[in-house]
Amino acid sequence: MTSPRDRSTPPADTAPRRLTIKDVAHAAGVSLTTVSHALNDRGYVDPDTRARVKRIAQELGYRPNLRAQRLRTGKTNSIAVFFSMPLAIAGGPARMGFMMEIVAAASEAAMRRNLSLVLVPPLAGANDFLDGLDIDGAIVIEPALGDPQIPALRQRGVCVVSIGRPPEPEPAIPYIDLQTTAMAQLWFEHLYGQGARRIALLVGAQPRHSNLETERVYRAFAADKGLPVLIRKADVHVGEAAGAAACRELLAEDPAIDAVCVPVDAFATGTMQALHEAGRRVPHDVKVVTRYDGLRAKNSVPPITAVDLNLEQRAVMAVELLFEHICGDTRHAMLPGPAPTLIVRASSVVA
Amino acid sequence: MTSPRDRSTPPADTAPRRLTIKDVAHAAGVSLTTVSHALNDRGYVDPDTRARVKRIAQELGYRPNLRAQRLRTGKTNSIAVFFSMPLAIAGGPARMGFMMEIVAAASEAAMRRNLSLVLVPPLAGANDFLDGLDIDGAIVIEPALGDPQIPALRQRGVCVVSIGRPPEPEPAIPYIDLQTTAMAQLWFEHLYGQGARRIALLVGAQPRHSNLETERVYRAFAADKGLPVLIRKADVHVGEAAGAAACRELLAEDPAIDAVCVPVDAFATGTMQALHEAGRRVPHDVKVVTRYDGLRAKNSVPPITAVDLNLEQRAVMAVELLFEHICGDTRHAMLPGPAPTLIVRASSVVA
Repeated sequence: MTSPRDRSTPPADTAPRRLTIKDVAHAAGVSLTTVSHALNDRGYVDPDTRARVKRIAQELGYRPNLRAQRLRTGKTNSIAVFFSMPLAIAGGPARMGFMMEIVAAASEAAMRRNLSLVLVPPLAGANDFLDGLDIDGAIVIEPALGDPQIPALRQRGVCVVSIGRPPEPEPAIPYIDLQTTAMAQLWFEHLYGQGARRIALLVGAQPRHSNLETERVYRAFAADKGLPVLIRKADVHVGEAAGAAACRELLAEDPAIDAVCVPVDAFATGTMQALHEAGRRVPHDVKVVTRYDGLRAKNSVPPITAVDLNLEQRAVMAVELLFEHICGDTRHAMLPGPAPTLIVRASSVVA
Repeated sequence: MTSPRDRSTPPADTAPRRLTIKDVAHAAGVSLTTVSHALNDRGYVDPDTRARVKRIAQELGYRPNLRAQRLRTGKTNSIAVFFSMPLAIAGGPARMGFMMEIVAAASEAAMRRNLSLVLVPPLAGANDFLDGLDIDGAIVIEPALGDPQIPALRQRGVCVVSIGRPPEPEPAIPYIDLQTTAMAQLWFEHLYGQGARRIALLVGAQPRHSNLETERVYRAFAADKGLPVLIRKADVHVGEAAGAAACRELLAEDPAIDAVCVPVDAFATGTMQALHEAGRRVPHDVKVVTRYDGLRAKNSVPPITAVDLNLEQRAVMAVELLFEHICGDTRHAMLPGPAPTLIVRASSVVA
């Protein structure tokens, strides 16, 4: 067993006295105003003096008092990413990979813009927390109809962009499109092309645009091809088990189902389990496709056909779009992002 | 294909004029000082007046100017979580699940303390970014020997705690222990108890305490039981492929290996692949155990024996420990956290 060593308490962190522009002015032999103008590239300062002041400031290790600067300019240089669902949920983190891939890329993009990225979890009481949160902008991920976050943020004067189109009739906010219409077409055309004629849809119950639009495309596709409509909705908060249960219901309704489109990857894992238990071979008896190309799709046996969502690129675009809007540049209300492509794997193609 | 609707550019977010304590003072018919004292529970204010001022402030929707308050108190109410490796790495995010589980729980714990949680990715140039980062404290996850983050943070007067003990001879900082010694004992005793007598260790090459300590325990255990020592180290940045390559080397060195302890779960996935390719059955021919109980361990075929690290609880403890140290309470230099327990699965037990 671990025996915690008898380490003495580490010394409290002590910050050295912070240098001020007075120190720089003294060392450079110029006025405070000159230092301020030189360092901020404002007002008129002789170019040689400006260069000398900057050099001396750097040599001394002077850093501007950002808090004072931010108070003056009203800018916080912080943006937040909001999660539209709890992360630590029963049955495992169903959308965690998807959201965390976005967060990881966004935090890097934010840093390149000298913005801090604050992570805001969806706890009860988040609105009180909002009052204490000093941010210029926020990114929300696939907002659902009636999510209270967006109005709460806008009421506080915070710029908001979303990844994934907000479902109507939510007020328009700038967004990075996930191209769900194109994605859904890819799924159904691929399954149809592989010979599937009894294609079921197992979709998330939350009223997000991607769920609503996938169902719309599915119904239109089925009507166009004269295929039966077989739909089940499941709660993402429950995760894999909800996917397995919904798949069992679909099999009970129509034992001849030959494909299941399961956009939520946690549901796809549950679907694979339910199909296996029911003695259906994937892909021979039933083909399966999903959306997020995470560990669940890649490490499944067989691996599951998924979509390249270019999440990293979309996360970077979201930070850039948010930055534009914070700076008052509101030209772009929507950016389509790269077109989705299918990553075809053994779950949907008979070798 | 998606046809972006011709949505008009959304109106620029406009914040209503912010109420000040002058508005509250006017509405309550008291002085500015009285409002300030009443709202901040300072100075002497008649209890009834205090209650009335608070009620009026709330009714008006007054929110304190946090930036001004923070400038005055020197507190930012922000903490950061630092990643000790890039998230978007070649071959897939090897440690992402592990770190993101910590981040998710820490962000919830931080919010309960009214702290913002800032995510700092490990980009080149992060030290310049640090200068612009206005934080009271930071959590680092499993620091490696020579990581530049901790000295850089401490030099800026930022309180630092780590999850996982910092490897010696790094300066002592407060930390939440991961109890690696106990964990490693559990692995080797379990494998030995299942009859394994040629146990290999496939460990991360980075000089983190957990890697170093696991190797130390392994060597002591092998010496004690008179077992051969079979060690390979792999680079986490490469991910699954590095684990597969290291496993092949181990099999080449000793084809009679009957167990592999693979703490990094990405390496465990690679190990399962390499064993499968080499025609070794898991667990019949070779037993496998790993550390992080994430999607890789759970969804593997067969599922892999892992450790309950209580990551969520440890993340919350890290936020609380950091909060104590920020507040000047330096009593706790280390918290052991709950003891690790083994989650025994089919990868290490012959049914």
